[in-house]
Amino acid sequence: MDDVVEPVAEDFQLPRVLAALADPHRLATVRFLARNGESWCAQVMQEAGLPMSKSTFSHHLRILREAGVLTKRIQGARGYTCLRKTDLDQRFPGLIDSVLSADSEPVG
Amino acid sequence: MDDVVEPVAEDFQLPRVLAALADPHRLATVRFLARNGESWCAQVMQEAGLPMSKSTFSHHLRILREAGVLTKRIQGARGYTCLRKTDLDQRFPGLIDSVLSADSEPVG
Repeated sequence: MDDVVEPVAEDFQLPRVLAALADPHRLATVRFLARNGESWCAQVMQEAGLPMSKSTFSHHLRILREAGVLTKRIQGARGYTCLRKTDLDQRFPGLIDSVLSADSEPVG
Repeated sequence: MDDVVEPVAEDFQLPRVLAALADPHRLATVRFLARNGESWCAQVMQEAGLPMSKSTFSHHLRILREAGVLTKRIQGARGYTCLRKTDLDQRFPGLIDSVLSADSEPVG
Protein backbone atom coordinates (compact mmCIF):
# COMPACT_ATOMS: atom_id res chain seq x y z
CA MET A 1 0.00 0.00 0.00
CA ASP A 2 1.03 3.61 -0.21
CA ASP A 3 0.03 6.97 1.21
CA VAL A 4 -1.34 8.58 -1.95
CA VAL A 5 -4.87 9.94 -1.51
CA GLU A 6 -6.96 9.53 -4.67
CA PRO A 7 -9.82 12.08 -4.62
CA VAL A 8 -13.43 11.18 -5.37
CA ALA A 9 -14.64 12.66 -8.67
CA GLU A 10 -16.61 15.44 -6.95
CA ASP A 11 -13.37 16.76 -5.45
CA PHE A 12 -11.39 16.91 -8.69
CA GLN A 13 -9.95 20.39 -9.22
CA LEU A 14 -9.47 21.62 -12.78
CA PRO A 15 -6.13 23.42 -12.19
CA ARG A 16 -4.72 20.31 -10.54
CA VAL A 17 -5.90 18.00 -13.34
CA LEU A 18 -4.45 20.37 -15.96
CA ALA A 19 -1.14 20.56 -14.08
CA ALA A 20 -1.02 16.75 -13.82
CA LEU A 21 -1.50 16.50 -17.60
CA ALA A 22 1.00 19.28 -18.37
CA ASP A 23 4.03 17.02 -18.79
CA PRO A 24 5.05 14.97 -21.85
CA HIS A 25 5.83 11.82 -19.82
CA ARG A 26 2.57 12.00 -17.90
CA LEU A 27 0.69 12.59 -21.16
CA ALA A 28 2.39 9.51 -22.64
CA THR A 29 1.31 7.52 -19.59
CA VAL A 30 -2.30 8.70 -19.94
CA ARG A 31 -2.31 7.95 -23.68
CA PHE A 32 -0.90 4.45 -23.08
CA LEU A 33 -3.58 3.67 -20.49
CA ALA A 34 -6.33 5.09 -22.72
CA ARG A 35 -5.25 2.69 -25.46
CA ASN A 36 -4.45 -0.36 -23.33
CA GLY A 37 -6.72 -0.19 -20.29
CA GLU A 38 -5.51 -1.12 -16.82
CA SER A 39 -1.85 -2.06 -16.96
CA TRP A 40 0.96 -3.24 -14.75
CA CYS A 41 2.93 -0.11 -13.77
CA ALA A 42 6.29 -1.55 -14.85
CA GLN A 43 4.74 -2.43 -18.21
CA VAL A 44 3.51 1.15 -18.74
CA MET A 45 6.99 2.50 -18.12
CA GLN A 46 8.56 0.03 -20.54
CA GLU A 47 5.98 0.00 -23.31
CA ALA A 48 5.13 3.71 -23.26
CA GLY A 49 8.87 4.35 -23.77
CA LEU A 50 9.47 6.42 -20.65
CA PRO A 51 13.24 6.82 -20.16
CA MET A 52 13.39 7.38 -16.41
CA SER A 53 14.09 5.67 -13.11
CA LYS A 54 11.38 3.72 -11.32
CA SER A 55 11.28 6.37 -8.58
CA THR A 56 10.77 9.18 -11.11
CA PHE A 57 7.96 7.23 -12.74
CA SER A 58 6.41 6.65 -9.31
CA HIS A 59 6.55 10.41 -8.73
CA HIS A 60 4.68 11.04 -12.00
CA LEU A 61 2.09 8.39 -11.08
CA ARG A 62 1.59 10.06 -7.70
CA ILE A 63 0.88 13.44 -9.31
CA LEU A 64 -1.62 11.83 -11.71
CA ARG A 65 -3.30 9.86 -8.91
CA GLU A 66 -3.53 12.81 -6.51
CA ALA A 67 -5.21 14.88 -9.25
CA GLY A 68 -7.70 12.09 -9.94
CA VAL A 69 -6.42 11.20 -13.42
CA LEU A 70 -5.33 7.65 -12.55
CA THR A 71 -6.12 5.03 -9.96
CA LYS A 72 -3.86 2.24 -8.74
CA ARG A 73 -4.51 -1.10 -7.13
CA ILE A 74 -2.17 -3.73 -5.74
CA GLN A 75 -2.58 -7.37 -6.65
CA GLY A 76 -0.02 -9.72 -5.21
CA ALA A 77 3.34 -8.05 -5.58
CA ARG A 78 2.29 -5.95 -8.55
CA GLY A 79 0.76 -2.50 -8.88
CA TYR A 80 -1.75 -1.90 -11.66
CA THR A 81 -2.88 1.51 -12.83
CA CYS A 82 -5.87 2.67 -14.82
CA LEU A 83 -7.17 5.91 -16.34
CA ARG A 84 -10.25 7.27 -14.47
CA LYS A 85 -11.95 8.09 -17.76
CA THR A 86 -15.53 7.83 -16.49
CA ASP A 87 -14.86 10.06 -13.48
CA LEU A 88 -12.96 12.62 -15.60
CA ASP A 89 -15.71 12.65 -18.26
CA GLN A 90 -18.33 13.17 -15.58
CA ARG A 91 -16.46 16.01 -13.89
CA PHE A 92 -14.90 17.75 -16.93
CA PRO A 93 -16.84 16.65 -20.04
CA GLY A 94 -14.71 16.53 -23.18
CA LEU A 95 -11.44 17.44 -21.49
CA ILE A 96 -9.67 14.08 -21.64
CA ASP A 97 -10.97 13.35 -25.14
CA SER A 98 -9.59 16.66 -26.40
CA VAL A 99 -6.23 15.96 -24.72
CA LEU A 100 -6.10 12.40 -26.09
CA SER A 101 -6.97 13.49 -29.61
CA ALA A 102 -4.48 16.38 -29.64
CA ASP A 103 -1.23 16.01 -31.49
CA SER A 104 1.47 15.33 -28.94
CA GLU A 105 4.09 17.23 -30.91
CA PRO A 106 4.06 20.56 -32.72
CA VAL A 107 2.74 20.32 -36.27
CA GLY A 108 5.02 20.78 -39.29
CA MET B 1 6.51 46.82 -26.65
CA ASP B 2 7.82 43.86 -24.72
CA ASP B 3 10.04 40.82 -25.26
CA VAL B 4 7.39 38.10 -25.04
CA VAL B 5 7.40 35.77 -28.03
CA GLU B 6 3.88 34.64 -28.98
CA PRO B 7 4.10 31.36 -30.96
CA VAL B 8 2.24 30.74 -34.21
CA ALA B 9 -0.54 28.17 -33.84
CA GLU B 10 1.49 25.40 -35.50
CA ASP B 11 4.09 25.70 -32.74
CA PHE B 12 1.68 25.43 -29.81
CA GLN B 13 2.74 22.62 -27.45
CA LEU B 14 0.05 20.80 -25.51
CA PRO B 15 2.00 20.45 -22.22
CA ARG B 16 2.78 24.16 -22.27
CA VAL B 17 -0.83 25.15 -22.98
CA LEU B 18 -2.05 22.85 -20.19
CA ALA B 19 0.53 24.28 -17.77
CA ALA B 20 -0.51 27.82 -18.68
CA LEU B 21 -4.14 26.96 -17.91
CA ALA B 22 -3.29 25.10 -14.68
CA ASP B 23 -3.71 28.08 -12.37
CA PRO B 24 -6.93 29.51 -10.93
CA HIS B 25 -5.99 33.13 -11.69
CA ARG B 26 -4.98 32.34 -15.24
CA LEU B 27 -8.18 30.34 -15.71
CA ALA B 28 -10.16 33.35 -14.44
CA THR B 29 -8.33 35.56 -16.95
CA VAL B 30 -9.13 33.17 -19.82
CA ARG B 31 -12.78 32.89 -18.75
CA PHE B 32 -13.09 36.69 -18.55
CA LEU B 33 -11.66 37.12 -22.05
CA ALA B 34 -13.86 34.33 -23.46
CA ARG B 35 -16.91 36.20 -22.14
CA ASN B 36 -15.83 39.76 -22.89
CA GLY B 37 -13.57 39.58 -25.93
CA GLU B 38 -10.46 41.73 -26.26
CA SER B 39 -10.02 43.79 -23.11
CA TRP B 40 -7.73 46.39 -21.59
CA CYS B 41 -5.29 44.47 -19.36
CA ALA B 42 -5.96 46.66 -16.31
CA GLN B 43 -9.68 46.07 -16.81
CA VAL B 44 -9.23 42.30 -16.84
CA MET B 45 -7.36 42.42 -13.56
CA GLN B 46 -10.04 44.56 -11.93
CA GLU B 47 -13.17 43.01 -13.35
CA ALA B 48 -12.06 39.37 -13.20
CA GLY B 49 -11.40 39.94 -9.48
CA LEU B 50 -7.72 39.07 -9.44
CA PRO B 51 -6.21 40.12 -6.10
CA MET B 52 -2.59 40.61 -7.09
CA SER B 53 0.00 43.21 -7.99
CA LYS B 54 0.30 44.49 -11.54
CA SER B 55 3.67 42.75 -11.89
CA THR B 56 2.22 39.41 -10.80
CA PHE B 57 -0.62 39.81 -13.29
CA SER B 58 1.92 40.65 -16.00
CA HIS B 59 3.77 37.44 -15.11
CA HIS B 60 0.57 35.42 -15.56
CA LEU B 61 -0.13 37.16 -18.89
CA ARG B 62 3.39 36.32 -20.05
CA ILE B 63 2.91 32.61 -19.31
CA LEU B 64 -0.42 32.62 -21.18
CA ARG B 65 1.04 34.52 -24.15
CA GLU B 66 4.18 32.37 -24.42
CA ALA B 67 1.99 29.25 -24.51
CA GLY B 68 -0.20 30.76 -27.23
CA VAL B 69 -3.35 31.11 -25.13
CA LEU B 70 -3.51 34.92 -25.31
CA THR B 71 -2.26 37.67 -27.57
CA LYS B 72 -1.56 41.26 -26.60
CA ARG B 73 -1.41 44.48 -28.59
CA ILE B 74 -0.49 48.00 -27.60
CA GLN B 75 -2.68 50.95 -28.58
CA GLY B 76 -1.55 54.32 -27.31
CA ALA B 77 -0.50 53.87 -23.70
CA ARG B 78 -2.71 50.86 -23.14
CA GLY B 79 -2.21 47.13 -23.56
CA TYR B 80 -5.12 45.01 -24.76
CA THR B 81 -5.28 41.24 -24.53
CA CYS B 82 -7.43 38.68 -26.29
CA LEU B 83 -8.00 34.91 -26.15
CA ARG B 84 -6.59 33.11 -29.24
CA LYS B 85 -9.70 30.93 -29.47
CA THR B 86 -9.50 30.27 -33.21
CA ASP B 87 -5.84 29.24 -33.05
CA LEU B 88 -6.43 27.05 -29.99
CA ASP B 89 -9.49 25.41 -31.57
CA GLN B 90 -7.51 24.70 -34.72
CA ARG B 91 -4.56 23.19 -32.88
CA PHE B 92 -6.36 21.39 -30.01
CA PRO B 93 -10.02 20.94 -31.00
CA GLY B 94 -12.39 20.99 -28.04
CA LEU B 95 -9.76 21.71 -25.41
CA ILE B 96 -10.61 25.32 -24.59
CA ASP B 97 -14.35 24.68 -24.78
CA SER B 98 -14.04 21.84 -22.26
CA VAL B 99 -11.95 24.04 -19.96
CA LEU B 100 -14.36 26.96 -20.26
CA SER B 101 -17.40 24.79 -19.59
CA ALA B 102 -15.84 23.04 -16.58
CA ASP B 103 -16.84 24.04 -13.10
CA SER B 104 -14.11 26.22 -11.70
CA GLU B 105 -14.59 24.91 -8.17
CA PRO B 106 -15.09 21.41 -6.77
CA VAL B 107 -18.72 20.31 -6.77
CA GLY B 108 -20.63 19.85 -3.51
